[in-house]
Amino acid sequence: MTIKPLADRVVIKMVEAEETTKSGIILAGNAKEKPQVAEVISVGPGGMVDGKEVKMYLKEGQKVLMSQYAGTNVKIDGQEYIILRQSDILAVVE
Amino acid sequence: MTIKPLADRVVIKMVEAEETTKSGIILAGNAKEKPQVAEVISVGPGGMVDGKEVKMYLKEGQKVLMSQYAGTNVKIDGQEYIILRQSDILAVVE
Amino acid sequence: MTIKPLADRVVIKMVEAEETTKSGIILAGNAKEKPQVAEVISVGPGGMVDGKEVKMYLKEGQKVLMSQYAGTNVKIDGQEYIILRQSDILAVVE
Amino acid sequence: MTIKPLADRVVIKMVEAEETTKSGIILAGNAKEKPQVAEVISVGPGGMVDGKEVKMYLKEGQKVLMSQYAGTNVKIDGQEYIILRQSDILAVVE
Amino acid sequence: MTIKPLADRVVIKMVEAEETTKSGIILAGNAKEKPQVAEVISVGPGGMVDGKEVKMYLKEGQKVLMSQYAGTNVKIDGQEYIILRQSDILAVVE
Amino acid sequence: MTIKPLADRVVIKMVEAEETTKSGIILAGNAKEKPQVAEVISVGPGGMVDGKEVKMYLKEGQKVLMSQYAGTNVKIDGQEYIILRQSDILAVVE
Amino acid sequence: MTIKPLADRVVIKMVEAEETTKSGIILAGNAKEKPQVAEVISVGPGGMVDGKEVKMYLKEGQKVLMSQYAGTNVKIDGQEYIILRQSDILAVVE
Repeated sequence: MTIKPLADRVVIKMVEAEETTKSGIILAGNAKEKPQVAEVISVGPGGMVDGKEVKMYLKEGQKVLMSQYAGTNVKIDGQEYIILRQSDILAVVE
Repeated sequence: MTIKPLADRVVIKMVEAEETTKSGIILAGNAKEKPQVAEVISVGPGGMVDGKEVKMYLKEGQKVLMSQYAGTNVKIDGQEYIILRQSDILAVVE
Repeated sequence: MTIKPLADRVVIKMVEAEETTKSGIILAGNAKEKPQVAEVISVGPGGMVDGKEVKMYLKEGQKVLMSQYAGTNVKIDGQEYIILRQSDILAVVE
Repeated sequence: MTIKPLADRVVIKMVEAEETTKSGIILAGNAKEKPQVAEVISVGPGGMVDGKEVKMYLKEGQKVLMSQYAGTNVKIDGQEYIILRQSDILAVVE
Repeated sequence: MTIKPLADRVVIKMVEAEETTKSGIILAGNAKEKPQVAEVISVGPGGMVDGKEVKMYLKEGQKVLMSQYAGTNVKIDGQEYIILRQSDILAVVE
Repeated sequence: MTIKPLADRVVIKMVEAEETTKSGIILAGNAKEKPQVAEVISVGPGGMVDGKEVKMYLKEGQKVLMSQYAGTNVKIDGQEYIILRQSDILAVVE
Repeated sequence: MTIKPLADRVVIKMVEAEETTKSGIILAGNAKEKPQVAEVISVGPGGMVDGKEVKMYLKEGQKVLMSQYAGTNVKIDGQEYIILRQSDILAVVE
């Protein structure tokens, strides 16, 4: 069973805390917004979104930084995912 | 009696909790927004919506993920439906 | 005496509760928005509304679903009507 | 002394309650918005308003329905008027 | 010393209450917005404002009606003025 | 060390209260917004700002009126400056 | 490990308080917004952002002034960074 995001949305999977620490990334929080490291699982087709053409530049497998409160959580076969708009992804980590 | 959604709206029917569990999807909630699995029953014609051309890409029979608080509930012949905008549908589940 | 709605507005008349039950429609409410069945009485001319061209697709006599809190109530010759924008009509019931 | 409304504004005068009753219109209120019957006294020139071309379709002498909380009250020579945008006029009553 | 308003702003001077009464205008207030009579002292050049071309149609010396809470008060040489956008002027009084 | 404002921003320096009094300007405050006299120190390059072309018309050395709560305060070498958008400047004083 | 900002975002690193004092910049705060000096570490590619073409004019190594509450904090290898939109950078300090 797979989740195919619509429009300019992407499906991401949070990277485990252990993995995060190992890779040297520790996230500092502030009161309003806490970033998190995640892996891109699936990318929507883009196209016209709210009357504007959106081109998808994210790719499956990329490690990304996002805002904690963006998007919607779903759990499939015991694995938690987040569906959010590409514009809510702040940066790619390499 | 049938409901024909207008503009960029779609009519969906929530998939029963039992069916959801059987298909392996368990939805994690957060405080602001809880996703849900639903089946697309009817799709509006699209066209100009708030001055912007909207093309409908959803099809009847698709299983979709949505935000719980989007749309309006209606009950016809004992069956509950939700009418919401296509843009409130997050993803297709296959 | 008649009410001629302006711009993209329509005048509707709520369908009686008895009639609603007879036709098999029972409306489920949620805390934020309760849909209602109504009949379209009069349709505005459309045209430029807030800088955007609006085409009217509703017709007199149609049964429609709407949000309870949309529009403005008026009472003429003992009959209550609601004036609201065409975009606040969710679906046509047939 | 006369009031010449600017841009897409119109000047209206509330129709007396007695006259309203005589003409058979009784207005039902809801908590948020109460409609009222008024007569159009003066119509602005229209033109570019907030970057959009507005064409005036209201005419002096028309009886109209409006929202009670729209516009600004002024009193000239003992007569109270309301200045509001043409788009706040809901319908013409004939 | 003079104030030259920028963009689509105008400088106005409130007409004294005595003068207002003499001219027969008494302003009715409501809870949200109280209109006032003022004289146009200076008119900005118009031009592009927030990406939209604004043409100035007000002229020095005109008597105008405005909303009390629009604009910013300044006092120069003991005289109080208000700087506000042309679109906050409701009507010209003649 | 100098501050070069970006986009449609300008750097201004408040004119001392003594100087303000001497020049005959006394600012009347209201509860929401208090204007202030300032001198333009540096003007940004303008250009595309939020998808709109902005042309800078302010010049260094001009005395201007602004809203007190617009912009951001910075202190360099003991001198306090304010960085704000050109559109937050209400008028030029000559 | 590097952070590559997306769209119109930039990655900046706060300049140490000691360094700030040495360079003569002391930041005055107000209740709503406190500016800060930072160094640009990485600049996104720009391009279409929310339907508008954004061109990046910031460069790595520049010292900039920003609003304290803009952007999202991240910590990588013990170093704290902020990811924010180019439009949240107020000025370049030279």
